[in-house]
Amino acid sequence: MALTVPLFCNFVVNLTILLALETNTTVTTDKEACRILVSLLEKHCVEEAVVSPGSRNAPLMMALSASGSIRCTVVIDERSAAFIALGKASVTGRPVVLVCTSGTALLNYAPAVAEAYYRKVPLIVVSADRPVEWIDQDDSQTLRQYEALANYVKGNYNIPADCSAPTRQWYANRMVNDALISATSGRQAPVHINVQLDAPLGGMAGWNDTRWTARTVGIIQPDQRLSHADAASLATIVSTSPRVLVIAGFHNPDVALRDALERLSLRGNVAVMTETISNLSSPRFINAIDSVLSIMSEDELDHMRPDLVITVGGAIVSRFIKQYLRRVHPDEHWHVGLSDTTIDCFQSLTQRIDMEAAPFFSGLLSVIDEDCIACCQSGYYEAWMALDCSARKIHSYFLQSAPWSDLRAVSTLMDAVPEGTALQLSNGTSVRYAQLFPALQCSRADSNRGVSGIDGSTSTAIGAASAFPNRLTMLLTGDMSAQYDIGALAAPCIPPTFRMAVLCNGGGGIFRFIDATRSMPILDRFLVADRPFPLRQLVDAYGFAYLEASSEAELVAVLPEFFSPSDRPVILAINTPGDVSANILRDYLGLQ
Amino acid sequence: MALTVPLFCNFVVNLTILLALETNTTVTTDKEACRILVSLLEKHCVEEAVVSPGSRNAPLMMALSASGSIRCTVVIDERSAAFIALGKASVTGRPVVLVCTSGTALLNYAPAVAEAYYRKVPLIVVSADRPVEWIDQDDSQTLRQYEALANYVKGNYNIPADCSAPTRQWYANRMVNDALISATSGRQAPVHINVQLDAPLGGMAGWNDTRWTARTVGIIQPDQRLSHADAASLATIVSTSPRVLVIAGFHNPDVALRDALERLSLRGNVAVMTETISNLSSPRFINAIDSVLSIMSEDELDHMRPDLVITVGGAIVSRFIKQYLRRVHPDEHWHVGLSDTTIDCFQSLTQRIDMEAAPFFSGLLSVIDEDCIACCQSGYYEAWMALDCSARKIHSYFLQSAPWSDLRAVSTLMDAVPEGTALQLSNGTSVRYAQLFPALQCSRADSNRGVSGIDGSTSTAIGAASAFPNRLTMLLTGDMSAQYDIGALAAPCIPPTFRMAVLCNGGGGIFRFIDATRSMPILDRFLVADRPFPLRQLVDAYGFAYLEASSEAELVAVLPEFFSPSDRPVILAINTPGDVSANILRDYLGLQ
Repeated sequence: MALTVPLFCNFVVNLTILLALETNTTVTTDKEACRILVSLLEKHCVEEAVVSPGSRNAPLMMALSASGSIRCTVVIDERSAAFIALGKASVTGRPVVLVCTSGTALLNYAPAVAEAYYRKVPLIVVSADRPVEWIDQDDSQTLRQYEALANYVKGNYNIPADCSAPTRQWYANRMVNDALISATSGRQAPVHINVQLDAPLGGMAGWNDTRWTARTVGIIQPDQRLSHADAASLATIVSTSPRVLVIAGFHNPDVALRDALERLSLRGNVAVMTETISNLSSPRFINAIDSVLSIMSEDELDHMRPDLVITVGGAIVSRFIKQYLRRVHPDEHWHVGLSDTTIDCFQSLTQRIDMEAAPFFSGLLSVIDEDCIACCQSGYYEAWMALDCSARKIHSYFLQSAPWSDLRAVSTLMDAVPEGTALQLSNGTSVRYAQLFPALQCSRADSNRGVSGIDGSTSTAIGAASAFPNRLTMLLTGDMSAQYDIGALAAPCIPPTFRMAVLCNGGGGIFRFIDATRSMPILDRFLVADRPFPLRQLVDAYGFAYLEASSEAELVAVLPEFFSPSDRPVILAINTPGDVSANILRDYLGLQ
Repeated sequence: MALTVPLFCNFVVNLTILLALETNTTVTTDKEACRILVSLLEKHCVEEAVVSPGSRNAPLMMALSASGSIRCTVVIDERSAAFIALGKASVTGRPVVLVCTSGTALLNYAPAVAEAYYRKVPLIVVSADRPVEWIDQDDSQTLRQYEALANYVKGNYNIPADCSAPTRQWYANRMVNDALISATSGRQAPVHINVQLDAPLGGMAGWNDTRWTARTVGIIQPDQRLSHADAASLATIVSTSPRVLVIAGFHNPDVALRDALERLSLRGNVAVMTETISNLSSPRFINAIDSVLSIMSEDELDHMRPDLVITVGGAIVSRFIKQYLRRVHPDEHWHVGLSDTTIDCFQSLTQRIDMEAAPFFSGLLSVIDEDCIACCQSGYYEAWMALDCSARKIHSYFLQSAPWSDLRAVSTLMDAVPEGTALQLSNGTSVRYAQLFPALQCSRADSNRGVSGIDGSTSTAIGAASAFPNRLTMLLTGDMSAQYDIGALAAPCIPPTFRMAVLCNGGGGIFRFIDATRSMPILDRFLVADRPFPLRQLVDAYGFAYLEASSEAELVAVLPEFFSPSDRPVILAINTPGDVSANILRDYLGLQ
């Protein structure tokens, strides 16, 4: 049985209330809705808020300010604020609340909320609004906010302006409880709470706990376990299929899952492929999928065709594996994970397994062990590991002779990343390069691959860095992504442990690389950002340290300083030739 | 009868086609949907596109690139791109097309699209998408794009991926015609065309005109005229009401409307109040509403209570006039303008007049003249003009003794603005300050008052400036707005005639001013951006000219250079004390 937060933190909460009652010093807003909301955030143990200035949301900020347990970060730009919250929530695994004022403020949250939705990250989006009767009335900042993010949240809640009546307070309390439970249980996702607030906004009152600021609704969710019958039948299929391929997309670090997959791989017929952002690397797995697939001939690929594919985690970065499996069509594809929809990314799905991956594989293994199900000695695991070994040799050989390029730069950079660094990867080429150099020394690796936008990579990385200010967080990004989200550098929460390596290749390296665009006559005019990007001056402006490298030797020379402790964030521009870099990557991957 | 663009530009189009057929050199995408779309954009005489890099939208860019008549501006950040398009469309009165790739790109358009919707600006939003069968399939950049902006557009269109069949081409042609007609006729507004595009994306083909790339649907809209019966009955009310107050919110410059209002004001019982962004100023109107209302006692205000209020244009900036009319409740309130909803911003609406303001007032006046309806000699006009005269004297007196502050700075700045300058005003205090100094020498004044966001003021101003690169465009903004949209400075289309004056008052001056927030204990921590905003370094980084003034004398000294012709944009930081500025403005407005 999994106990949820309200129960485990009741003791702390009760103590806090007792202390407040004794001293009775807290002054907060007189708006009941805001008092209820913030009180329940505390009682549900939400600890982080990212707020953006506004007058309509001032009562919400007053309530947050009076809270003893919710840390607030103030970020002017709501788009950046939302990505910072996403960064915090994604690496802590805990919900983060976003608070904005009325009007377009909320719409600026949309990109990060969509990313969070497809990435299963619990963001509590709170927007202040005018009372419903003022919407569309040509008064300041009155647009249709309720359900504005409906496509990308798990629930929409609309708290009425007048919460003076006890039934309205009950209603607000129930909605906030529902929103917090919804965001954090089952398939985690953002929720949107729209809080209507009427003038006067500045009213204050002493804090007094009431039934509706205090009442929390907990949720007890049963442990997820495969039934014995399901486990037995699935275990039989896994054990008797000569070629089982497990593929892990983005996932939080999960030691239990990694251990289970390692155990499964011991059976000989199971190979495991992990992407960098699956955070599940192991010497027993293929951790650089593209490096291996790209050295294989079509015949070899056909020969290695899996009978059964099991996917865990989110969207797969590797186009090679997706194209491969769409071509060879495994007999069966099981996807393990909580999902509201049927995700059939290889066009071969046969089984949705609606539970977290770790308990699924544990359940499977316990049946296999218990029933002493025999190994299927197909040699599938060994065959893949032999390919992996060859790929690594070719990889080293290629790197030795490759000229200065993005590939060389990322290779040198990833080698030098210190143990325990948290890695953040931007779209589009950064995450692809990083996949070729599994940095097993990193504590984790993340990227906005829910919907793969370039819009908030810097903000997301800053959010993640701020959640763990004592460890190094390094963002690897491109110059186009960096320019897109340049306003992120104004965020007040960037710790001195933040590092940002920018591949400055004339922008839009992905477009020089991919088939669709690389030969287009519009490449230079429309796709690559071959315009000045004054990174050094921008970094100076925000008072960060700046380093630069334009060759292998310069990069090697500068990396010790880049990774050394510093009293301020450090940004490293790595200047590479755009055309050469795209061609080297294509050569590496065996593309024509 | 109003002829629409397709008819008037048919000749040009036909010539172009003939030339293309003769030379037959144009190579473009092989995607029928993109060919149809861009061809119809041309034939409907859309001349401006703002596009953002991506691979999914590359076929759209190829089609645009092959177009001889559509100018393209490439902006990396889609949020900024959309505001730039809004700026272009709002000052030219012509539709601008936005083109982005799949994924969160589209969601970044939302703030500008909402602003455009409430401002009645025709933006043609075109998003590339994956084919519908790939949505929610954990493939790269697959989110629910269709209807993603539904709350803020007039129509949603979803063009299927496979347009090879003639019926599909007919369908695409019909939808694009419908979208373009919808955006630009009746109540103008944005529309969203989602174009599904399948791989391979790089296919090219020679141009050949087909039935479905050529067929345009025109629309003939009847002239809007008041029926004689309506005109007569409304004219009688206007002529017999002792106190008629016309109030103009944001509006495009409209000489016919201004002339009609001037004629109406000659009748003695009609006073006209115009906001700066109504672009309808006249010596016969009250052009600084807040200056006048703030010197009046409650008794005077009661005494001047209008019987009939007629509003034209969009949302009103002045809180004084809104609060006044909500308090005194005029007997009648007519709103003149095309609107889908009933907008009752003074809670007194009695009549929606669903037509443009100029033909309404012309119709009214022609009946009054024809029927020789007598003047109602109530002295209402004279009484208001007397108050205006007093207000101007008090205004001058106040300014002479006011210390250095935002108010003094804006006064000095507005006095110096050269004849013909286009003014752009950010939210929140800039537009309010500007309202106190009607700059009659300006060619026009605009602000994002559709939904009053601070998010895209700089980008919008840049878009407007780029549409008329030969005239001076000056943005007056605050440091918080400037920081929010700082990425706009990377736009490639900023003409050397762009000027930006930034009131650097420690950020968030509006919060120090308004009642709701100025006394809040959270002011410093949450609301005012009292953190470094390295404007000089940022301006240097982007290669613009930088000027600075920290006193009246310095400002006076620097303004000639600020307004002089320059080979690059000029940004002027005006440093003022935040607390003093807020207090001076409150004093000026007679607030406690």
